[in-house]
Amino acid sequence: MAAKSRIWTAALIVIGDEILSGRTEDRNIAQVARWLNDQGIRLLEVRVVADDTNAIVEAVNALRPDHDYLFTTGGIGPTHDDITIDSIASAFGVPVVVHPEARRILEAYYRDRPLGITEARLRMARVPAGAELIPNPTSGAPGVRMGNVYILAGIPNVAKAMLKALDGKIEGGEPMVSVTVRAHAAESDVAELLKAVQDEHPGVSIGSYPFYLQGNYGADFVVRSEDEKLANACAKVLRKKLMAAGVEIVEAE
Amino acid sequence: MAAKSRIWTAALIVIGDEILSGRTEDRNIAQVARWLNDQGIRLLEVRVVADDTNAIVEAVNALRPDHDYLFTTGGIGPTHDDITIDSIASAFGVPVVVHPEARRILEAYYRDRPLGITEARLRMARVPAGAELIPNPTSGAPGVRMGNVYILAGIPNVAKAMLKALDGKIEGGEPMVSVTVRAHAAESDVAELLKAVQDEHPGVSIGSYPFYLQGNYGADFVVRSEDEKLANACAKVLRKKLMAAGVEIVEAE
Repeated sequence: MAAKSRIWTAALIVIGDEILSGRTEDRNIAQVARWLNDQGIRLLEVRVVADDTNAIVEAVNALRPDHDYLFTTGGIGPTHDDITIDSIASAFGVPVVVHPEARRILEAYYRDRPLGITEARLRMARVPAGAELIPNPTSGAPGVRMGNVYILAGIPNVAKAMLKALDGKIEGGEPMVSVTVRAHAAESDVAELLKAVQDEHPGVSIGSYPFYLQGNYGADFVVRSEDEKLANACAKVLRKKLMAAGVEIVEAE
Repeated sequence: MAAKSRIWTAALIVIGDEILSGRTEDRNIAQVARWLNDQGIRLLEVRVVADDTNAIVEAVNALRPDHDYLFTTGGIGPTHDDITIDSIASAFGVPVVVHPEARRILEAYYRDRPLGITEARLRMARVPAGAELIPNPTSGAPGVRMGNVYILAGIPNVAKAMLKALDGKIEGGEPMVSVTVRAHAAESDVAELLKAVQDEHPGVSIGSYPFYLQGNYGADFVVRSEDEKLANACAKVLRKKLMAAGVEIVEAE
């Protein structure tokens, strides 16, 4: 069994009226979650807040002391509704300053583009005093790290590029391993069995996720653990007991 | 101009390890947001929390006093990881009881299905003492209303059916009207113009949502107001000023 290691945790704040109005379907929660898992960090809470300074400050200061890392997405563009940088500076009680390296990056990025560098575009060089930059390989304007707060873009492919730039650069533990057992059974048919198998395997959690596909009820039973051997052993026992109970196991995708 | 009416607000708690692990991409935030908007209720905050009693209790008690309505999705199935009902009962300080009507619904639903009604399935008749049911036209097990907390299923099409059953049944104000102006412009080119138009139109907010499609940069400028006339008038001014600035306006989908 693996040695018990420190657990690293994170929270995420998704900033944007467009998510709360239902105009835009969020794509960042899942990708930040998966990326954190790969770094061995557990995402424990997400909040979605409006483009509102008080809401952002309150969420940032509620979450940053409780986690190793806090990520935010959204609100770092050039327009009047982009208030994330100012809000996070306010949360830390520091002024907003122009980051010289960010300014240089933006000047270079816009040099050969129509209009060149403008006051609006230079807004994207503003950071809370004391912050560092997160590289943005896709679209010029960098992300920002302030203390344990990682400020990413809201556009999913830009956020993704910033995460990639951070790959392996922040400390984490062991990635959580998950093994999926897919069964053609209503989850209510095997609820007691699931609980019994979980209880027999400390250090493992089993999630049950029902689905309905092509006229058939089924469920994915997801065995999760930080210990890969333990997860596999538990999944093996689960498969065996399900089959013994007459449940058909199918290949999970 | 419409009379200033009371503003109705809501929060949403998405409950589930599968969202926080990135295994499942959430579909409920957007559909709850759009449905609330149709009821004239503003979604002001969303939290995603783990299948963990303390996390659920804390989020429920933090959010329910601050909003007219609190919605939750997830964790009301028959398996051991479905702890939403117990957690919300705990948040209200009441016991969990079997709701006789829910029991009757489940018995009828499972009468002609394999295995019939089982102890696991009867778990779905449990509610916090004092709660009422929310009809579930799709899959038997009902949703639950406890005070101002509306407890919905996590499976998106079941949550959708429960929302439909609540259509027009809870009090709200005027739906927020939004008018989208789509432009072939980098948002940073028109940031000052946007801010000026918003400042000229109190009661209106303009969001700017950049996109990159088929090699072209563009942005959707979304004009939002509770007053439809005001939203349309502001969008008209915005279109005119954008065109005067040489920006190409395209038909939004």
